[in-house]
Amino acid sequence: MASKPFAIIAGVGPGTGASIARKFAHAYAVVLLARNPANFTSVVDEINANGGHATGISTDLSDANSVQSAFEKINQQHGPSPLAAAVFNSGGGFVRKPFLDLTEAEFTSGFESQGKGAFHFAQRTLPLLQKSTALPNPPTLIFTGATASLKGSATFSPFAAGKFALRALAQSLAREFGPKGVHVSHVIIDGVIDIPRTKAWTFDQEDAKLDPHAIAESYWHLHTQPRTTWGFELDLRPYVEKW
Amino acid sequence: MASKPFAIIAGVGPGTGASIARKFAHAYAVVLLARNPANFTSVVDEINANGGHATGISTDLSDANSVQSAFEKINQQHGPSPLAAAVFNSGGGFVRKPFLDLTEAEFTSGFESQGKGAFHFAQRTLPLLQKSTALPNPPTLIFTGATASLKGSATFSPFAAGKFALRALAQSLAREFGPKGVHVSHVIIDGVIDIPRTKAWTFDQEDAKLDPHAIAESYWHLHTQPRTTWGFELDLRPYVEKW
Amino acid sequence: MASKPFAIIAGVGPGTGASIARKFAHAYAVVLLARNPANFTSVVDEINANGGHATGISTDLSDANSVQSAFEKINQQHGPSPLAAAVFNSGGGFVRKPFLDLTEAEFTSGFESQGKGAFHFAQRTLPLLQKSTALPNPPTLIFTGATASLKGSATFSPFAAGKFALRALAQSLAREFGPKGVHVSHVIIDGVIDIPRTKAWTFDQEDAKLDPHAIAESYWHLHTQPRTTWGFELDLRPYVEKW
Amino acid sequence: MASKPFAIIAGVGPGTGASIARKFAHAYAVVLLARNPANFTSVVDEINANGGHATGISTDLSDANSVQSAFEKINQQHGPSPLAAAVFNSGGGFVRKPFLDLTEAEFTSGFESQGKGAFHFAQRTLPLLQKSTALPNPPTLIFTGATASLKGSATFSPFAAGKFALRALAQSLAREFGPKGVHVSHVIIDGVIDIPRTKAWTFDQEDAKLDPHAIAESYWHLHTQPRTTWGFELDLRPYVEKW
Repeated sequence: MASKPFAIIAGVGPGTGASIARKFAHAYAVVLLARNPANFTSVVDEINANGGHATGISTDLSDANSVQSAFEKINQQHGPSPLAAAVFNSGGGFVRKPFLDLTEAEFTSGFESQGKGAFHFAQRTLPLLQKSTALPNPPTLIFTGATASLKGSATFSPFAAGKFALRALAQSLAREFGPKGVHVSHVIIDGVIDIPRTKAWTFDQEDAKLDPHAIAESYWHLHTQPRTTWGFELDLRPYVEKW
Repeated sequence: MASKPFAIIAGVGPGTGASIARKFAHAYAVVLLARNPANFTSVVDEINANGGHATGISTDLSDANSVQSAFEKINQQHGPSPLAAAVFNSGGGFVRKPFLDLTEAEFTSGFESQGKGAFHFAQRTLPLLQKSTALPNPPTLIFTGATASLKGSATFSPFAAGKFALRALAQSLAREFGPKGVHVSHVIIDGVIDIPRTKAWTFDQEDAKLDPHAIAESYWHLHTQPRTTWGFELDLRPYVEKW
Repeated sequence: MASKPFAIIAGVGPGTGASIARKFAHAYAVVLLARNPANFTSVVDEINANGGHATGISTDLSDANSVQSAFEKINQQHGPSPLAAAVFNSGGGFVRKPFLDLTEAEFTSGFESQGKGAFHFAQRTLPLLQKSTALPNPPTLIFTGATASLKGSATFSPFAAGKFALRALAQSLAREFGPKGVHVSHVIIDGVIDIPRTKAWTFDQEDAKLDPHAIAESYWHLHTQPRTTWGFELDLRPYVEKW
Repeated sequence: MASKPFAIIAGVGPGTGASIARKFAHAYAVVLLARNPANFTSVVDEINANGGHATGISTDLSDANSVQSAFEKINQQHGPSPLAAAVFNSGGGFVRKPFLDLTEAEFTSGFESQGKGAFHFAQRTLPLLQKSTALPNPPTLIFTGATASLKGSATFSPFAAGKFALRALAQSLAREFGPKGVHVSHVIIDGVIDIPRTKAWTFDQEDAKLDPHAIAESYWHLHTQPRTTWGFELDLRPYVEKW
C-alpha cells in the first residue's frame, strides 16, 4: 500500500467532498480532511468497507499548526507514495447579512476559509504534486468555486470576497505550476447541491439540484486530461438554473 | 440501424472534428459535415472500416439552401432515429491583417462562419435534440470557441467578432433550451491544436499543442453529464500556454 | 468653419445620439448620421439655432454604398478639418423571439447593424482620426454597448450576437489604434434609457432610467482623457438597476 | 467650515491618492488617511496653503482600533458635515515571489490591506454617505483596483487575492447601497503610474505611464454622475499598454 498513489480531499462533508473521495478512491488511497471528524468518519468507513483505502484527519486549514500536524500524519501514512491529486472543497465563510451588520470576524471568515485555507492546502500539496509527474494522470490540484466566484451579490460580501480570492489564487497557481507539470483547475458550482442539508429545499422542477456524484465525475475528468489539453475552469449548474 | 441514435459533427477536418467524430462514433452513428468532402472522406471511411456508421455531407453552413439540402439528406438517412448530439466545430473567418486593409467580405467572414453558420446549425439540430430527452445521455449541442471568444486582439477583429457572436449565441441557447432538456455547451480552445497543418510549428517544450483526441474526450464528458450538473463553458489549453 | 474640428455621431435618434451630438457640438462641428432623416432633423436644427454647426446625412451604415456616399459628403463639408471624435451609437438588431422562430434575416440583423455597420464606420473614421493627434483632446472613437454585450440572455441571440461582435471589434481596435494615438472606448449601457419611446415605461422608484444627457457627459469625459490615462470600458446603469 | 461637505481619501502617497485629494479639495474639505504621516503631510500642507481645507490622520485601515480612533477624530473635525465622497486607494500586499516561498503573512498581506482594510473603510464611511443624498452630487464610494483585479498572474497571488476580494466587495456594496443612494465604483488601474517611485522606469514610448492627475479627473467624473447614470467599473491604461 505504501507506494499506492494517494489523493487528498479537503472539505469533506456529506456532499461533494464525500462524492469526490468515493470517486478518487477507485484509483487511489484517499486522505480526507475536515474540521469535524463527524464529517468524514462515515465516508472513510464506507470506502474502507468497499475495499478502498481511506483515512480521515481532523484539520483546520486556516490554522498553520493544524495544517502542519495534518501533513505530518499524511507523511507518516503515505510518505513514499506519490500524491496524484489534491482537491480543495472547503466551505465556510458563508455569512449573509446586511453589510453594516457584519463584524470584522464575519467579513474575514470567507477569506480565512477560502483564501488562507486554500493557501495552506496549496503550499503543502504542490511540492508533493510536483514529484508525481510520472504518474499516468498528471498530478492535479482542483479548487471548488461557486456562483460567488464571479459575482459579488448584495449582502454576500464575506463569501464573495473569499471565493474571488480563491479564484485569483487558482489562476495564479495554474500559471506558475502548469509549466511545471501540475494541472490546476477551478470548478464553479452554480446552484444548490443535493445534499442532506438541502433535502427540504424544493423546486418547481425535478432534478433542479446539482448531483454531488456528477460533480465528482467532472473533477475526475479534469484529472485525467493529458497535459496537452488541460481545462482550467468549468462551470456546473442544473438545467433549470437561472444565470 | 434506423433507430440507432446519431450525432452530427459540423466542421470536420483532419483535426478536432475528426477526433470528435471518432469518439462519438463509438456510441452513435455519425454524420459529418464539411464544405469540402476531402475533409471528411477519409475519416468517414475509417469509422466505417472500424465497424462504426458514418456518412459525410458536403455542406456550407452559412448558406441556407445548402443547409436545407444537408438536413433533408440527414432526415432520409436517420429520420426516425433520435439525434443524441450535435457539435459545431466550423472554422473559417480566420483573417488576420491590419484593420484598415480588411474588405467588408473579410471582416464579415468571421460572422458568416461562426454566427450565421452556427445559427443554421442550431436551428436545424435543436428541434431534433429536443425530441431526444429520453436517451441515456441528455441531448447535447456543443460549440467550439477559441482564445478569440474572450479577447479581441489587435488585427484579429474578423475572427474575434465571429467567435464573440458565437459565444453570445451559445449562452442564449443554453438559457433557452437548458430548461427544455438540451445541454448547450461552449468549449474554448486556447492554443495551437496538433493537426497536420500545424506539424511544422515547433515550441521550446514538448506537448505544447492541444491534442484533438483529448479535446474529443472533453466533449464526450460534457455530453455524458446528467441534467442536474451541466457544464456550460470549459477552457482547454496546453500546460505551457501563456494566458 | 472649414478648419473647425468636427465630430461624427452615428445612430442619432431622440435619445442618446441626440444628447451626444448636443454635448460635442459645444466644441466641434457635428455630423449626424441616421438611416431616417426624421431622426436627426430636429436636433440638427436645434444645434444650429443655438449657434452650433450641425449637419445630418441619411446613411445606412450596413450598406457600403450608402457609407461611401455619406463620407463623400462629409469630405466635401469638412475635408480639411480634423476629425476629433466619432461615436457609433447605432441601434438595430433588437429582435426578441424564441430562437426557433427567428428567420436568418432576423438573426443576422444584430450583426448587420452592430458588426457590419460598426466596421464601415470604423474604417471610414479611423484614417481621419489618426490625422488628428495634434488636437488638444486625443481623437476618440466610442462604441455604444448594452447589457447584451456581456450576457446572451434567452431569446436575445440576434442582439447579443451583434453586441458581442461589436465589443470584440472595439477591443481589437483599441489594441491596434491605441498605440497610434486614437482612443477607442466601449460604453455599456445597462438599463432603460429615458427617451420618448420609453416614456410610458414606469418603475417603482423614480430616476430608474438612464439620462441621455448624463450618458453624453460620460462620453465627453472619455474623450477628454489624455493618452496616458485612457478608459476602455465603462458600464452605466441607474442606481436601482438589478445586475 | 463645520458644515462644508468633506471627502475622505484613504491610501495617500505621493501619487494617485495625493492627486485625488487635490482634485476633491477644490469642492470639499478633505481628510487624508495613510499609515505613515510622511505620506500625507506635504499634500495636506499644499492644499491648505492653496486655500483648501485638509487634514491628515495616521491610520492603519487593517486594524480596527486604528480605524476606530481615526473616525473619532474625523467625527470631531467634521461631525455635523455631510460626507460627500470616500475613496479607498490603499496599496499594500504587493508581494511578488514564487508561491512556495511565501509565508502565510505574505500571502494574507494582500487581503489584510485590500480586503480587511476596505471592509473597515466601507463600514465607517457608508453610514455617513447614506446621510448625504441631498448633496448636489450623489455620495460616492470609490475603490481602486489594478490589473490584478481581473487576472491572477503567476507569482502574484497575494496581491491578486486581495484585489479580487476588493472587487467582490465593491460589487456587493454597489448592489446593496446603490438603491440606497450611494454610488459605489471600482476603477481598474492597468499600468504603471507616473509617481516618484517609478521615475526611473523608462519605456520606449513617451507618455507610457498613467498620470495621477488624470486618474483623479476620472474619479471626479464618476462622483458627479447623477443616480440615473452611474458607472460601476472603469479601466484606465496608457495608450501603449499591452492588455
